[in-house]
Amino acid sequence: MTEAKKKVLSGAGLRGQIAGQTALCTVGKEGAGLTYRGYDVRDLAAHCKHFEEVAYLLLYGHLPNQAELKAYLQRLHAMRDLPQTLKEVLERIPADAHPMDVMRVGTAMLGTLEPEMSFAQQLDVVDRLLATFPAILLYWYRFSHEGVRIDCMTDEPDIGSHFLALLHGKSPSALHREVMNVSLILYAEHEFNASTFTGRVCASTLSDLYSCITGAIGSLRGPLHGGANEAAMELIDRFSSPEEAVAELREMIARKDLIMGFGHAIYRDSDPRNEVIKGYAKKLADEAGDTVIYPVSEAIESYMWEEKRLFPNADFFHASAYRFMGIPTELFTPIFVCSRVTGWAAHVFEQRANNRIIRPSAEYIGEDERPVAPIEQR
Amino acid sequence: MTEAKKKVLSGAGLRGQIAGQTALCTVGKEGAGLTYRGYDVRDLAAHCKHFEEVAYLLLYGHLPNQAELKAYLQRLHAMRDLPQTLKEVLERIPADAHPMDVMRVGTAMLGTLEPEMSFAQQLDVVDRLLATFPAILLYWYRFSHEGVRIDCMTDEPDIGSHFLALLHGKSPSALHREVMNVSLILYAEHEFNASTFTGRVCASTLSDLYSCITGAIGSLRGPLHGGANEAAMELIDRFSSPEEAVAELREMIARKDLIMGFGHAIYRDSDPRNEVIKGYAKKLADEAGDTVIYPVSEAIESYMWEEKRLFPNADFFHASAYRFMGIPTELFTPIFVCSRVTGWAAHVFEQRANNRIIRPSAEYIGEDERPVAPIEQR
Repeated sequence: MTEAKKKVLSGAGLRGQIAGQTALCTVGKEGAGLTYRGYDVRDLAAHCKHFEEVAYLLLYGHLPNQAELKAYLQRLHAMRDLPQTLKEVLERIPADAHPMDVMRVGTAMLGTLEPEMSFAQQLDVVDRLLATFPAILLYWYRFSHEGVRIDCMTDEPDIGSHFLALLHGKSPSALHREVMNVSLILYAEHEFNASTFTGRVCASTLSDLYSCITGAIGSLRGPLHGGANEAAMELIDRFSSPEEAVAELREMIARKDLIMGFGHAIYRDSDPRNEVIKGYAKKLADEAGDTVIYPVSEAIESYMWEEKRLFPNADFFHASAYRFMGIPTELFTPIFVCSRVTGWAAHVFEQRANNRIIRPSAEYIGEDERPVAPIEQR
Repeated sequence: MTEAKKKVLSGAGLRGQIAGQTALCTVGKEGAGLTYRGYDVRDLAAHCKHFEEVAYLLLYGHLPNQAELKAYLQRLHAMRDLPQTLKEVLERIPADAHPMDVMRVGTAMLGTLEPEMSFAQQLDVVDRLLATFPAILLYWYRFSHEGVRIDCMTDEPDIGSHFLALLHGKSPSALHREVMNVSLILYAEHEFNASTFTGRVCASTLSDLYSCITGAIGSLRGPLHGGANEAAMELIDRFSSPEEAVAELREMIARKDLIMGFGHAIYRDSDPRNEVIKGYAKKLADEAGDTVIYPVSEAIESYMWEEKRLFPNADFFHASAYRFMGIPTELFTPIFVCSRVTGWAAHVFEQRANNRIIRPSAEYIGEDERPVAPIEQR
């Protein structure tokens, strides 16, 4: 590949190329940071008490009224438990497995137990995934780490609270409920990012929804995509004071280390999700009496802006927010899955409704034609 | 989506758009039907006794000499058995599961047991998948259908023969060995088709190889992509004579039914793989004393050319060839996986060596910006 490395890449990354249409989302459109079906994500975060309102918006096409929301919350509640066979499979995944691989296996396995037999079932399948993802992750996590077989049903009203209740074995505080719902709303959808695009390419062959979601999970797992909040936490954890953070950052920047959680491929001046989650990180820090993590985070933010004119993206203050809610760092990206499955599925539905198989071309940079030598002459 | 359906699609399918570079393959280049690293696929099929020569070419960059091939066959042979835990998972997949879903679960699960911890392990991972795919499929198949726990090791020299030996519980004939090797060679690589492109999008986030392959399997599962040889078999099975085939085809064409196994998105006049597999289908028919399947297949081929100027693609005569070797129709597409995993992985390696995250844009066709109404006012 040395030759290829030296060449200017042709078509690399499809940056700026239109790969299809969507009615789901705008990203970085002038004057509007991030919208889901026309609604500003900040407006949704401020007015939707339950993430399920946004899930319903993305999947069913409009914001639910009170009766629709009540029915939807009840429907998802009833779908939370895992098939016994799936539990047996989760028990066989090692404790040191990558939690995103657990999500991948869980989705793939559920697809063999409750397959999508026709596209008429697509809403049933995504609702089932939405309802079961917290248990798929946390049944494995607590079995492999604590040796307990948790009850996958809780009385929590929404998926965000359910997640925290399964993790901690107790009902979360009002503030923690609120933060989880806001977090899931912020992460739900983001146009043709790499994981969503993976799902659409898969959907374009008219494959089943489990295949599309499994593929998307695999892409989100990559460190250039979904892992930034975990990397941000690891960065923050290295410092015990704002002064230490600034001193070390100076050296890291001099070494040209990549600082995760800053800047964005599309946003130029700020990530509209940051102001929302930062506000909650502050509230959680105050509640916890924190004197290190939040001040260190703010010091990193200020320094990155002063030195590099880089702003925190959605991931940076998510790191401390999740930490204050007692979520282990390795589970950050799977929470992203619990939310983004709604955006992924909505894109799959769009692709199915107006499909052409996604099959781009390549620029050939290889050997000219040549004959095959018989093996004894090679 | 009614609005969108009426509009001309913008960027749909990325047809003709360059999405990156490759040194692996040309498809439909003038004067050369299909080449792998510069070698015509027909030349490879004629001169490579074992599919593993082509796997080595794609993965390691050159055709192996005798010593390299011997070592590679031994290496893959030693990697064939499945971990006990994976067998326990496969035993939990229902008998009526889609065999492609079994491949998806098997790959995803192996990724938790033997993860790719760094890209330095990428050749180990793909060789392990290549060696275990026949057993992943057939351990499940024979356990769920016959209740037997097969020995996943055989003394067969190559993967093609190993596949048939695991399926039938006995060593295949010389002709069957040859056909399986040729078939795997023909299916190994095909540039930026949808499953390969899925793998590359996933690779572009720097995710692990299991994620890329799981995603690619999910895309190949779609009926617009990998299922064509199964659909061709189902078509052929509907007719008991060439005359009946022609009569019914006439009606199907009048009804505008889609006839699978004919035509191609890229090839215009013929699929270079067809002449090779058709020759073997004829040999197998003669060996089996067949008087129905092959004559029906030829009648369909002639009629499609006369009436529609459509030629058989690689899938059409694969159907009868696989049938003559006693392979159940539902296992046809997983054989494609056993072969194409080499092309997929080689593309992942290329993407990793010269990466930019694949993140196209979308044309927005949705609602204008609008405020969120409080739920009680919706």
